[in-house]
Amino acid sequence: MATIKLWTDEEAAIVPAVKTVFEDIRATRKSDFVNNFWRALANQPRLLERTWSSVKQVMMESGVLDPLTKELVYIAVSTVNSCSYCVHSHTAAARAKGLSDEQYAEFLAVVGMAEETNSLANSMQIPVDREFLIG
Amino acid sequence: MATIKLWTDEEAAIVPAVKTVFEDIRATRKSDFVNNFWRALANQPRLLERTWSSVKQVMMESGVLDPLTKELVYIAVSTVNSCSYCVHSHTAAARAKGLSDEQYAEFLAVVGMAEETNSLANSMQIPVDREFLIG
Amino acid sequence: MATIKLWTDEEAAIVPAVKTVFEDIRATRKSDFVNNFWRALANQPRLLERTWSSVKQVMMESGVLDPLTKELVYIAVSTVNSCSYCVHSHTAAARAKGLSDEQYAEFLAVVGMAEETNSLANSMQIPVDREFLIG
Amino acid sequence: MATIKLWTDEEAAIVPAVKTVFEDIRATRKSDFVNNFWRALANQPRLLERTWSSVKQVMMESGVLDPLTKELVYIAVSTVNSCSYCVHSHTAAARAKGLSDEQYAEFLAVVGMAEETNSLANSMQIPVDREFLIG
Amino acid sequence: MATIKLWTDEEAAIVPAVKTVFEDIRATRKSDFVNNFWRALANQPRLLERTWSSVKQVMMESGVLDPLTKELVYIAVSTVNSCSYCVHSHTAAARAKGLSDEQYAEFLAVVGMAEETNSLANSMQIPVDREFLIG
Amino acid sequence: MATIKLWTDEEAAIVPAVKTVFEDIRATRKSDFVNNFWRALANQPRLLERTWSSVKQVMMESGVLDPLTKELVYIAVSTVNSCSYCVHSHTAAARAKGLSDEQYAEFLAVVGMAEETNSLANSMQIPVDREFLIG
Repeated sequence: MATIKLWTDEEAAIVPAVKTVFEDIRATRKSDFVNNFWRALANQPRLLERTWSSVKQVMMESGVLDPLTKELVYIAVSTVNSCSYCVHSHTAAARAKGLSDEQYAEFLAVVGMAEETNSLANSMQIPVDREFLIG
Repeated sequence: MATIKLWTDEEAAIVPAVKTVFEDIRATRKSDFVNNFWRALANQPRLLERTWSSVKQVMMESGVLDPLTKELVYIAVSTVNSCSYCVHSHTAAARAKGLSDEQYAEFLAVVGMAEETNSLANSMQIPVDREFLIG
Repeated sequence: MATIKLWTDEEAAIVPAVKTVFEDIRATRKSDFVNNFWRALANQPRLLERTWSSVKQVMMESGVLDPLTKELVYIAVSTVNSCSYCVHSHTAAARAKGLSDEQYAEFLAVVGMAEETNSLANSMQIPVDREFLIG
Repeated sequence: MATIKLWTDEEAAIVPAVKTVFEDIRATRKSDFVNNFWRALANQPRLLERTWSSVKQVMMESGVLDPLTKELVYIAVSTVNSCSYCVHSHTAAARAKGLSDEQYAEFLAVVGMAEETNSLANSMQIPVDREFLIG
Repeated sequence: MATIKLWTDEEAAIVPAVKTVFEDIRATRKSDFVNNFWRALANQPRLLERTWSSVKQVMMESGVLDPLTKELVYIAVSTVNSCSYCVHSHTAAARAKGLSDEQYAEFLAVVGMAEETNSLANSMQIPVDREFLIG
Repeated sequence: MATIKLWTDEEAAIVPAVKTVFEDIRATRKSDFVNNFWRALANQPRLLERTWSSVKQVMMESGVLDPLTKELVYIAVSTVNSCSYCVHSHTAAARAKGLSDEQYAEFLAVVGMAEETNSLANSMQIPVDREFLIG
């Protein structure tokens, strides 16, 4: 159903740049599973390398936001973008990082509330209060 | 610049339904400041009441997501929707709830990364892996 | 603030294709006012002609939807697209076609409700019920 | 395909809050059919209750917009949001409320026209005419 | 899965306006294949005629942008809109017009980069530099 | 109006990571002008470095798409995202790379056409033709 080929492990093994990223995905995640997103990006090794490198830096390095918060932000973006693949993969990732049913329920309520108030603000073209401006 | 009138406190004082919500906003937030969003919604008292009631339930009741996480999810939605008012007001709210510069920097990186990978998944129409499906 | 020049009446008078459309806008609307949208499109006369012709056919010809309903659909689209110009111009048009404050309040509530439920359906990736499919 | 479980009637019967909403949906619509949207929301009873209560108020209470107009606005929002579930369910709802093929054809033309002119306004960043501003 | 009927050639043969457009699609493209988009639009002959006429003018007339560039712009829009049908049909069209794997890889990188920087600009609400303004 | 501080050259001079990127921007573009986007990103040096590095790779390295085509794709994305800053800055960039008024007119027509047909495909939920699928 994709617009491009999804690379099998056999095909990935032949191209060193792809092989290296697939191995790093497996080592980093401690799992043999390489999901379709990376198998699709394998068609363009440089994009594959840069994207994986960025995802590792942004999503996996320890920082000042906890991993679950990052996943929730990711799903929120994916929901508004109506990206079915992204919603599925990052909801799975969030569950793997401990998202409980209660947290998911609250998260859904926040996204829905944000959408509703966004549309109200956009349709009424409400001017930004001075109190919210910087500098 | 709005498509409707923004209600002053004097005008709000005359309509009981609006007066009650404005007073509850002030009491709940322990601040005299009522931002333009509510002054615009005052044109439709029922929508004002239902929206304020929902926002209180979703954003302010203690639950299983911390208040700052909720604000970050809110800003993420507002960014994708390109809702200038919402981005401004909820970024201010997030700062008031303790968002540090470092956390904001990480948050921006996550939103940007999500957008980039969303577009890659959407443009290649990548099929959802079976591993991500429920049931 | 535009990315292109907005044509004055003097400039429009020199290019026959633009002059003709501006005159038709004035005659059709029975008003001397030509709004900035058409002054921007004047930079590309063929696009100006095709767009004005389509808008006249879609929005102004009498059909089976009343003119106010069409404007509400238009504003709904513009709100989701976060198109400030479009929200302003079509909210003004809707008011000129009789939109009351009560109707506008109900409309805002419907758009907000649609956004909220849209995000819930998108985030949970709810499968379409067989009952909703055609054929 | 959903990211969460869709509740069966048997499961709904066990949780009073869910059971009550499902019964009210059936009574209000005078139909035994409970569509997947509500079966998904059943995972979070409070969100289910608030959403159903809001939908009833906004979409079903008699007001100053007719029910079909509200559905068309709903479909317009769902189309721009690319919410497949919402487009399907509300197009079915609109047909049930009397949407004719001719009206649907006109509606599609309006949505398409709005999208086209939205993109033109957004790409040229056309400034809002003073005539469209309030106050 | 559509919300409306997709017209077969037999059905199209009965309605002159539809028959004429289908024949022109085949003649213009020098192919017997009429894709589902036009079979769906056949439900509303006037919309079918206007849309086909516009597509021919915009996408097929020789102009100052090459045909492949136009298709890339089209796919970019469709990606952001999360329009699965449009992404599929115009990626196929771009390949038919000579899009190479290397060009597609670069295109994907540009779209992804644009999305990421868009979200950064929108979330920080960066003011437009004077240098970018016209006039 | 931004949600964060825009760094002056004096402030940038104090932080080595920011100073280095600002100098590279000036050297790469052969211009003293550093636009607000980078002055905003300066608040988060790692994000600044990664974003500038990616933009250089994607937009400035010679490849198989010409620079103007890349800018047009960028503006198309920014238009759909309703990102005012991005539309302004990349339209200016496209003009600097030789975009003529005639090309811009054709581009606007393509984006508008894509939006219109996207909404038609999304609202009718047209199934993808088998002919467009890969593999």
